[in-house]
Amino acid sequence: MSLLTVGTVAYDAIETPFGKTDKIVGGAATYIAWSASYFSKPVNIVSVIGDDFDMHELDLLRQRGVDTDGIEIKQGKKSFFWSGRYHLDMNSRDTLATELNVLLEFNPIIPDKYKNSDILLLGNIDPNLQLKVIEQLPVRPKLVVMDTMNFWMTEAFIGKLHEVMKKVDVIAINDAEARQLSGEYSLVKAAKKILTMGPRYLIIKKGEHGALLFHGNEVFFAPALPLEEVFDPTGAGDTFAGGFCGYLDKSRDISFDNMKRAIIYGSAMASFCVEKFGTERLKTLTHKDIEDRVKEFIDLVQFDIILE
Amino acid sequence: MSLLTVGTVAYDAIETPFGKTDKIVGGAATYIAWSASYFSKPVNIVSVIGDDFDMHELDLLRQRGVDTDGIEIKQGKKSFFWSGRYHLDMNSRDTLATELNVLLEFNPIIPDKYKNSDILLLGNIDPNLQLKVIEQLPVRPKLVVMDTMNFWMTEAFIGKLHEVMKKVDVIAINDAEARQLSGEYSLVKAAKKILTMGPRYLIIKKGEHGALLFHGNEVFFAPALPLEEVFDPTGAGDTFAGGFCGYLDKSRDISFDNMKRAIIYGSAMASFCVEKFGTERLKTLTHKDIEDRVKEFIDLVQFDIILE
Repeated sequence: MSLLTVGTVAYDAIETPFGKTDKIVGGAATYIAWSASYFSKPVNIVSVIGDDFDMHELDLLRQRGVDTDGIEIKQGKKSFFWSGRYHLDMNSRDTLATELNVLLEFNPIIPDKYKNSDILLLGNIDPNLQLKVIEQLPVRPKLVVMDTMNFWMTEAFIGKLHEVMKKVDVIAINDAEARQLSGEYSLVKAAKKILTMGPRYLIIKKGEHGALLFHGNEVFFAPALPLEEVFDPTGAGDTFAGGFCGYLDKSRDISFDNMKRAIIYGSAMASFCVEKFGTERLKTLTHKDIEDRVKEFIDLVQFDIILE
Repeated sequence: MSLLTVGTVAYDAIETPFGKTDKIVGGAATYIAWSASYFSKPVNIVSVIGDDFDMHELDLLRQRGVDTDGIEIKQGKKSFFWSGRYHLDMNSRDTLATELNVLLEFNPIIPDKYKNSDILLLGNIDPNLQLKVIEQLPVRPKLVVMDTMNFWMTEAFIGKLHEVMKKVDVIAINDAEARQLSGEYSLVKAAKKILTMGPRYLIIKKGEHGALLFHGNEVFFAPALPLEEVFDPTGAGDTFAGGFCGYLDKSRDISFDNMKRAIIYGSAMASFCVEKFGTERLKTLTHKDIEDRVKEFIDLVQFDIILE
């Protein structure tokens, strides 16, 4: 099996109440690839970077079975850069700088060798580009998952966003975005509306409050692990999505029941991500680390009630 | 087995985005008694009301096996009254009026027939009164559970609150209160500190985001049920506590594993409470309603992962 993801590979500079970083490697596709690489091989990335990018970081990804040939390197250009500062609650942040740079001319071209990937995970980019990716695939992947954000729910993009939504199986957004997209405050009502817009599965990410998976009239809830310290939440949502898709790809099962498991694995990966700045923690995981963490999730929610 | 609770029996006037009420019956002990009555008999209440109180409401409680002899009726005085308005998110509210009335002279006297109750649930009242209740019991109950709130964590009361905490087994507070009481933002760190203050069990209520139970190094998470509509959250925390204690009392088991079950039952009861104004929904439940709701909680979080 194989996973194809399209998204940013970039530089971030992050301030949290616990410290700050210089430019470090970030971007949705980076987090997705690191996370998915623990389950799925190959993970195929389509992205764009400038020649200022630290190419050693791509070596590290390749050592984990990630195929980086789909990352276009623009000579003489700079990589996408984002800088932000988190508040004490880590749920809100201020953007300090956004330099689109190479992202302004991103035109995702899917290499032929990626075209039969089993799962497509569209990272959070312009829905016009997400659509372009889908249209390049001669065979529809077994599962198409999309991330997006509030910025693409504004007038200039919402039409195209709806077009993409009609072509995907799973959409993953946060609670505020679900409310904005549906115009409903209640997440249950929001989910019902969004599930009429195209996707058959909706994941609502609630950060430290866990995640909900909606499908038809069914709903599944996965908690977030209560952590002593959330050090840096950057990339947690992408890490979650990467783990979710990677697990589905590895287990070759896209049933609702297996998606529940995949959400637990995605949540486990996200819980590692926030322990250190950037992708640092994701670079040093072992298979046992992940299984132990999943065990913590099982213990966290397990109870036995025998109904009469 | 038997449950003793001490707390307010009162009038509320509530505004939510969905409507508003005139004076309706409320108060922590009222919600606790209605909720616990589905599990435990008798439920013994100690409280105080004025002669303006609708005595038919006490008849209704008695019909459910609640002993109301411990509710003192002050002739010529008015019952405690609270009025509030909820915001759209239902997590925040403005208090419009607080008329303490009979609460100003509340001096809880435990009737002899209540003195051997198996479980004591101290509703959210002045810690001086909570202490007075504990001191009147010749034999320590098998389990002492306390609720409290931020108001009692201020300079004038915090010393007494700590005194009460040293005498209880379980404390149930919300996330903001846990942060205030501990001075820690991380709930895991907050829990570690609070568990050194007396209680061996800490329940942190997170409203629509569920509840956490901490004990030693163990933690259990119970989700809230995702609801189409939260109609009126008043009393949800008390209903939760009543269901939690009622279930423990009925099942005669105060182990950590059984507390997990009790939290699910408490959460189920709270999910009914918010469906209508005041205690309305709690008055019409059947045993089957409750079991069906608990089944929804099981389905909501159940997954099967077999670790290698």
